[in-house]
Amino acid sequence: MRVVIVGYGNIGKAAIDAVLASNDMQLAGVVSRRAESLKEELGKRNIQVVSELDDLDKVDVALLALPTRQVPQAAQQLLQKGISTVDSYDIHGGIADLRKQLDPIAKQSGAVSIISAGWDPGTDSVVRCLMQAMAPKGITYTNFGPGRSMGHSVAAKAVKGVKDALSITIPLGTSIHRRMVYVETEEGADFEQIKQDILADDYFKHDETHVYKVDSVADLNDVGHAVLMERKGVSGNTHNQLFKFQMHINNPALTAQIMVASARAAMKMPSGAYTLIQVPPIYLLEGDQEQLIKQLV
Amino acid sequence: MRVVIVGYGNIGKAAIDAVLASNDMQLAGVVSRRAESLKEELGKRNIQVVSELDDLDKVDVALLALPTRQVPQAAQQLLQKGISTVDSYDIHGGIADLRKQLDPIAKQSGAVSIISAGWDPGTDSVVRCLMQAMAPKGITYTNFGPGRSMGHSVAAKAVKGVKDALSITIPLGTSIHRRMVYVETEEGADFEQIKQDILADDYFKHDETHVYKVDSVADLNDVGHAVLMERKGVSGNTHNQLFKFQMHINNPALTAQIMVASARAAMKMPSGAYTLIQVPPIYLLEGDQEQLIKQLV
Repeated sequence: MRVVIVGYGNIGKAAIDAVLASNDMQLAGVVSRRAESLKEELGKRNIQVVSELDDLDKVDVALLALPTRQVPQAAQQLLQKGISTVDSYDIHGGIADLRKQLDPIAKQSGAVSIISAGWDPGTDSVVRCLMQAMAPKGITYTNFGPGRSMGHSVAAKAVKGVKDALSITIPLGTSIHRRMVYVETEEGADFEQIKQDILADDYFKHDETHVYKVDSVADLNDVGHAVLMERKGVSGNTHNQLFKFQMHINNPALTAQIMVASARAAMKMPSGAYTLIQVPPIYLLEGDQEQLIKQLV
Repeated sequence: MRVVIVGYGNIGKAAIDAVLASNDMQLAGVVSRRAESLKEELGKRNIQVVSELDDLDKVDVALLALPTRQVPQAAQQLLQKGISTVDSYDIHGGIADLRKQLDPIAKQSGAVSIISAGWDPGTDSVVRCLMQAMAPKGITYTNFGPGRSMGHSVAAKAVKGVKDALSITIPLGTSIHRRMVYVETEEGADFEQIKQDILADDYFKHDETHVYKVDSVADLNDVGHAVLMERKGVSGNTHNQLFKFQMHINNPALTAQIMVASARAAMKMPSGAYTLIQVPPIYLLEGDQEQLIKQLV
């Protein structure tokens, strides 16, 4: 199966590694607006980079390693051409609608779209689903971090006087989070004012937030992240069933790996658009299905 | 959907609770060899109990709450009648073959069989599958307990001079387990000899095993169990990705709940036989699929 990666940011780069590590895939190439400037870097690794997908030979699945807001339009265009897509679209409130929008397009062209196929939304969603199947009544808490929140970092960076910003999410339990915000200020900016502006921002005002001034945000950068999901619930009429799922991971590497696993699933699903909880988990894996059943069940 | 429970042991009893707690299911009744003697107990709860399935009105799915060795034959007979089945068959080495055996029978009669649908094999298998999708290279350790091992308890009970026995599995990490064996001896039996016989038994001789004499095994009985699954692996070419899944649960209540969730999935799958890793996780849940996607993804 021939896989193309659309986008060459953190996820796109990690997706190259994950495709090359898969024995059942061939990397068709990378599509990037910056194709010209990437030719040397990627050429050394024998990876083709183009600015338009049409410049590549036949492609089965495209991994959309794009900013999340660009995903819907890109997915639609590719599906219309009959190319299956995988993305890690992460605007939780928009996922169900995106799936409904892409589903008829995929069906019409006989393609498959697997959307929101990162770790949250994505594999975390599958674990939430499993936990609910095991204990239908109860509460699941998803606790993120410690790790960088892109959305919050961007919101802090947008505040007047901020040159660069990093917002770290700290889990306090029961889905409550602390925000640790590190800002590099512009020459002559008033840090106290910046701090007040961040604390008043919609992204931060509902959470415990601490703002610190640092010399270099770049020096603090670490793409590690973590999650702890916990459910206490009822199986039948038996209470106090306790479930926990935890991971500490390199964020772009995991996201890209899940997208690559989902590309494999896209080749096996009937045409249409799906979230990961609608995909048989075995489809995510490389190898003979009978052998996988023997090894994993 | 009308569900029948075949068998009335620990799992069968818990399955009644789980079916009655499901809004999308109707309990068609219980099938048991002991139907006559159970009529009063179950009659009080308005639950029909029969010795032959044919004595019940139309049934969609049968939950096989039987000793694991009776499962293959029972499943085959029901599938031949066009009744879908769910079991928690737990002989790990036989699962792939059982599925292959039941698959054509289910297909021929337009029924569905979901096999080995407990927690291990079952939901643990799904978690192992997910962890492997997230980090294809690496090692997963499944650590059981503390909790009773049925197989080991039965093996200890079969030793000469043993009246009753309980073997508790204690996790020591990296899939290594300690066996804590509690025996009630028969009048005049030699405990030292019993201890040597247990330590030499195939079930125990490869593990660290401790044997204790107690006055009453029944007084120690607790159906709680636990598991800790851990994987350290590689996503793409990024090492040290860490995953952990843990639960502390009432064993029959959880097994029965997962079987009930799988009965729901059996109504949605195309005809054939499946293990849980082949089933879209969303099929396990009650409720509108679009709503579930909104809530869980």
